[in-house]
Amino acid sequence: MTCLLAFAVTILAGASTLITQTTRRQPATPWRDQAVIHLEGSPYAKLQGVPVRAVRIDDGLWGARRKVNVEKSIPSTIKLIEEHGYLDNFRRLSKGKNVPKKGPVFADTDTYKWLEAAGFAMQSQDLPALKALAEDAISEVVAIQESSGYLNAHFVGDLASRRLLPETMEYGHELYNLGHLLQGAVAYYRATGNRKMLDAGAKMADYLIRDFGADKKPLLAGHPEVEMALVELYRTTGDRRYLDLAGYILGGDKRLDRRPERVVYTFSGTPFFERKQLEGHSVRAMYASCGATDYYLETGDSRYLKTLENLWQDLVNRKMYITGGIGSRWEAEAFGQAYELPNARSYAETCAAIGSMMWNWRMLAATGDARYADVIERALYNAINVGVSVDGVLYCYRNPLESPGIDEPNWQSKDGRVRNSWYDVLCCPPNIQRTLASLPGYFYSTSKDGVYVHLFHNSELSWKLADGTAIRITQKTGYPWDGEVSIRVEPGKPADFTFHVRVPGWTTRATLEVNGKPAAGEVRPGTYVALRRTWHSGDAVRLKLDMSPRLVVTNPRVAENTGRVAVERGPLVYCLEGLDQPREAGSLSDVMLAAGKGAGFREEFKPDLLGGVMVLRHPAFVYTNSLTSEPLYGLLGSQPRRPTQRTELTFIPYYVVANREPSPMMVWIPLAQSTR
Amino acid sequence: MTCLLAFAVTILAGASTLITQTTRRQPATPWRDQAVIHLEGSPYAKLQGVPVRAVRIDDGLWGARRKVNVEKSIPSTIKLIEEHGYLDNFRRLSKGKNVPKKGPVFADTDTYKWLEAAGFAMQSQDLPALKALAEDAISEVVAIQESSGYLNAHFVGDLASRRLLPETMEYGHELYNLGHLLQGAVAYYRATGNRKMLDAGAKMADYLIRDFGADKKPLLAGHPEVEMALVELYRTTGDRRYLDLAGYILGGDKRLDRRPERVVYTFSGTPFFERKQLEGHSVRAMYASCGATDYYLETGDSRYLKTLENLWQDLVNRKMYITGGIGSRWEAEAFGQAYELPNARSYAETCAAIGSMMWNWRMLAATGDARYADVIERALYNAINVGVSVDGVLYCYRNPLESPGIDEPNWQSKDGRVRNSWYDVLCCPPNIQRTLASLPGYFYSTSKDGVYVHLFHNSELSWKLADGTAIRITQKTGYPWDGEVSIRVEPGKPADFTFHVRVPGWTTRATLEVNGKPAAGEVRPGTYVALRRTWHSGDAVRLKLDMSPRLVVTNPRVAENTGRVAVERGPLVYCLEGLDQPREAGSLSDVMLAAGKGAGFREEFKPDLLGGVMVLRHPAFVYTNSLTSEPLYGLLGSQPRRPTQRTELTFIPYYVVANREPSPMMVWIPLAQSTR
Repeated sequence: MTCLLAFAVTILAGASTLITQTTRRQPATPWRDQAVIHLEGSPYAKLQGVPVRAVRIDDGLWGARRKVNVEKSIPSTIKLIEEHGYLDNFRRLSKGKNVPKKGPVFADTDTYKWLEAAGFAMQSQDLPALKALAEDAISEVVAIQESSGYLNAHFVGDLASRRLLPETMEYGHELYNLGHLLQGAVAYYRATGNRKMLDAGAKMADYLIRDFGADKKPLLAGHPEVEMALVELYRTTGDRRYLDLAGYILGGDKRLDRRPERVVYTFSGTPFFERKQLEGHSVRAMYASCGATDYYLETGDSRYLKTLENLWQDLVNRKMYITGGIGSRWEAEAFGQAYELPNARSYAETCAAIGSMMWNWRMLAATGDARYADVIERALYNAINVGVSVDGVLYCYRNPLESPGIDEPNWQSKDGRVRNSWYDVLCCPPNIQRTLASLPGYFYSTSKDGVYVHLFHNSELSWKLADGTAIRITQKTGYPWDGEVSIRVEPGKPADFTFHVRVPGWTTRATLEVNGKPAAGEVRPGTYVALRRTWHSGDAVRLKLDMSPRLVVTNPRVAENTGRVAVERGPLVYCLEGLDQPREAGSLSDVMLAAGKGAGFREEFKPDLLGGVMVLRHPAFVYTNSLTSEPLYGLLGSQPRRPTQRTELTFIPYYVVANREPSPMMVWIPLAQSTR
Repeated sequence: MTCLLAFAVTILAGASTLITQTTRRQPATPWRDQAVIHLEGSPYAKLQGVPVRAVRIDDGLWGARRKVNVEKSIPSTIKLIEEHGYLDNFRRLSKGKNVPKKGPVFADTDTYKWLEAAGFAMQSQDLPALKALAEDAISEVVAIQESSGYLNAHFVGDLASRRLLPETMEYGHELYNLGHLLQGAVAYYRATGNRKMLDAGAKMADYLIRDFGADKKPLLAGHPEVEMALVELYRTTGDRRYLDLAGYILGGDKRLDRRPERVVYTFSGTPFFERKQLEGHSVRAMYASCGATDYYLETGDSRYLKTLENLWQDLVNRKMYITGGIGSRWEAEAFGQAYELPNARSYAETCAAIGSMMWNWRMLAATGDARYADVIERALYNAINVGVSVDGVLYCYRNPLESPGIDEPNWQSKDGRVRNSWYDVLCCPPNIQRTLASLPGYFYSTSKDGVYVHLFHNSELSWKLADGTAIRITQKTGYPWDGEVSIRVEPGKPADFTFHVRVPGWTTRATLEVNGKPAAGEVRPGTYVALRRTWHSGDAVRLKLDMSPRLVVTNPRVAENTGRVAVERGPLVYCLEGLDQPREAGSLSDVMLAAGKGAGFREEFKPDLLGGVMVLRHPAFVYTNSLTSEPLYGLLGSQPRRPTQRTELTFIPYYVVANREPSPMMVWIPLAQSTR
């Protein structure tokens, strides 16, 4: 029935002449069983996601984060969106409310992203109060749709004449708006079956299809986002025109005469498959890569896969922070050159790390290759996780790897604080909310031959294998603090299938047992170990990962990290905050870690600190005379040997930085040479 | 007579009610004898400049640069200003020329800065063709002045209603425009005695004085510049109201409610003497500091001097590149935090280094302290000198200390080249032109007790001591390639005075002789050696500076330079360009300088290379396997030991980079540890 409705909407939108040219695919799975990205019938997907509602996340780091997300973050953000007048932007038009337009040109998307977060949250649990707010917001949105299908609260009145002009598309975010509208609509549809916003989005897409395309007017995504949304609309409705429109946009219409630096910056407007490296605005590049991967998953166009693989190598070998954060530059919120990874001036926008997770999720679906899951886990636990405070109401936009505690005032923060409740450009807060709300959907995949487990946490999956056999998988673990994961496998009936257990790439030693016996074959970090057998209800898999703290170094081409080390433990990157250190080391400007390979760490789990974290302590030296008292330049060999004293440094997980009073912070710590 | 004229203009401008409140000082020196900044009668100046025309610069580095400046740079730039329609902006208004407005809101200043460069050039020599162009330009400018005195080609027509509103002053550059108008006018007046533009500028200043000030409407310099120009207008006209207006603007009118990050960025709008550090837009900070120093020189307000000293310490100890360049960030073209000095991403705008030279020149005048001359020389020979190509027609806006050869496309350069003939924001080209044209004015100062020599080059000064005794000083030297400077002193009659000879701070060993005998007392680098005696015509002073190449290191707080050295020789910073290196080292990504203290350098002067430069060669190692083939992160101690091979690197002076085909460039070179 839902498909018939989509069909009707398409006709209503006036695209009837096109219908005969399009092929259709009926989604067999009902809305409530569709995954974060729904790859049923995607011919080039090796893995299928499981619905968000199929996984229950229990006590632990993510349980706590998700509880705060639903109880604090999501409700407080819609309140702020309302208070800042962004919802009134819709009421100005639908209800004639006499208020000035508020926010940036893409202010509509804050409501859409919030709706997406709410939609994912409602896929996990009934949330009647949230649902009421969401239904109201949806009503406000769809009420401004014009009969043509055009839907945008900014390009109205005097600005209506500028709609979708080449120069408007460069900066106006109309397609970006549509993309987030569709993503919000899809998540809400998969939560509730309510198609109201989905239909509105499809109608706007139909409006585009009518007038724009290769043999019509040129279209440009000044901020990529709509590409993946259109593919998901295709997956949801079966209407191939949406996939084709995504392909056209990704193909880059060269009729538009654009400035070269804009082609770099927007990561659009030139054929995606001609890209040679990650460059320009990092969120744009990630969203474009998501869309390109989605397009590959449906079409198998090998030019895309080849390009995506090159870009991915560029990401992990040259342009990714140890946190999984990306985007080295404040200027244009952009990628830098290869190995340009400044610490204090890292931009590492929360949204970009989320974009990386989304892209790697798609690459994982296309390939089943564990290296993508490694990037997902790294970004998730660190660069994304840091994006919201422990109490769920303060957000990071950028995520530096070193900080004086409070930065100078900047456009994101009048008082230079890294965490704030509101940003006029409100991309990151609802973005992290949708990520946490959809997180259950990232734990498992199914494949033709069985099940993949990607992430570890106390949790329970209730789903089915490809052949329809019911499957329940229960994880019991203290992960990420403890490296032992007990997994109980319960097929509805004894079944032959492969249980693919991810062994994270970060571990140096791992063991895997099935029912108390070592698993056959190599348990190699950075792979999925394929456990192929007849599974019976109650079979026990036990994964043990070496959680010893690790000292990590960078390729010497990263100039800022020469002579420095970072500390990792399990999937977590650690850092120093000044307030945890002895007085003499609190400025962090004069500390050096005593050389060693991790043997010197003392671990202590502190249940009352920052939601419960493992802290690490390590011997160190600190200069008695501060470096800040010395000149900036000097002749080689002329520097005095400065006396040091012994001290001990306390490391906390990176994701909890800046949750207490402002304090200096540092991820990459100078390593003491062989001097005492 | 000139003063009477100024008096008359003031009355015409309608400021008659103020006249009785102002004190006047008659400039005794005729226009042709006024210096770059004219400190006659400035009560807090220890040093007085000499007129540009009093110093003839002969053969050598600066002789060649100045010849190209007058013959190529200055003429080609006015042609480009004309071609880009910036002069038509004036004709639109005065002649009703039917053309669209062109360029940024401050496009007027490009003409003014060019007029300043032309004016300084005309102080050194007769240039009839240039004069004709300048007179035409001046006519175009003054023709648009309104009867009120308002003069600006942008805020006209519909925009006239927005003149000097608080929000306009934040971004509109009206006062910045006036500042450059006045600087151009003063330079042209001192070249020719022509007051046409000077009077127009004074009339615009009078317009401001009428309506703006502490007890009138608030005034804000959104881009400082007008402060120093108003003080110079005061020095030129004797009208104290201009000094008071500068003081009012520097004092920061807190009635304006400004965003904190704008107060940081603009370096204005809060009392200058409350500033604690250099921050925000580096050119703004430098120009504000120039104005504040000028204000101190006239008033002796100790709050300013104390602040200026703090800011200066911040500059040289924490925020200055080894080149003398400043401004670490592309984002906002701004200073960074202390020790934030990235190399490839250094902004180091040419204008900022020029601003630093101008500020240090004022600090030198206030104190006679050689440390300011050291900064002037460092900036001049390196960060400023690099700003224009050897052929005089290509300019750098930013001046990185490391480069892949060609950067990605950016707003300054569509093809990513660092040198370009034109920038839509054309601040740097005429700025370096005015600097080279005014350079003779920076060689010497006079004081109550004698003469100071600041810079070394083949040259001749013909001027007079404070008591009026004529003095001729002739320098013969191969500086900056050779460290020996022969100075002939010729007073008009035997005279007792002190000859202050600067011993640059960069030298490690210097000797000084008078008439073949060692000078009495210590010849300490970073000071002026005071040679007090009775000087007779033909007395010979000989300064010998050790020109051995030096390996320089940075305070370890500069993260990017850990384990790296830079090469200096004399006042010049050196660098590597890939195209000079053996094939295996041409990418520069895998080179390491062999450890040593400079003993390993071979020197060779190459007269035909880049206008004639001394190149330096030094043993080095290069990795056989490129670092780029290795992963981004790894465990400490797990990296393979990579084989290296011996090679030799060739260094060229930094100021000639990017004058040949694009090639990787590097100032800070990794130093090989004790390996092989």
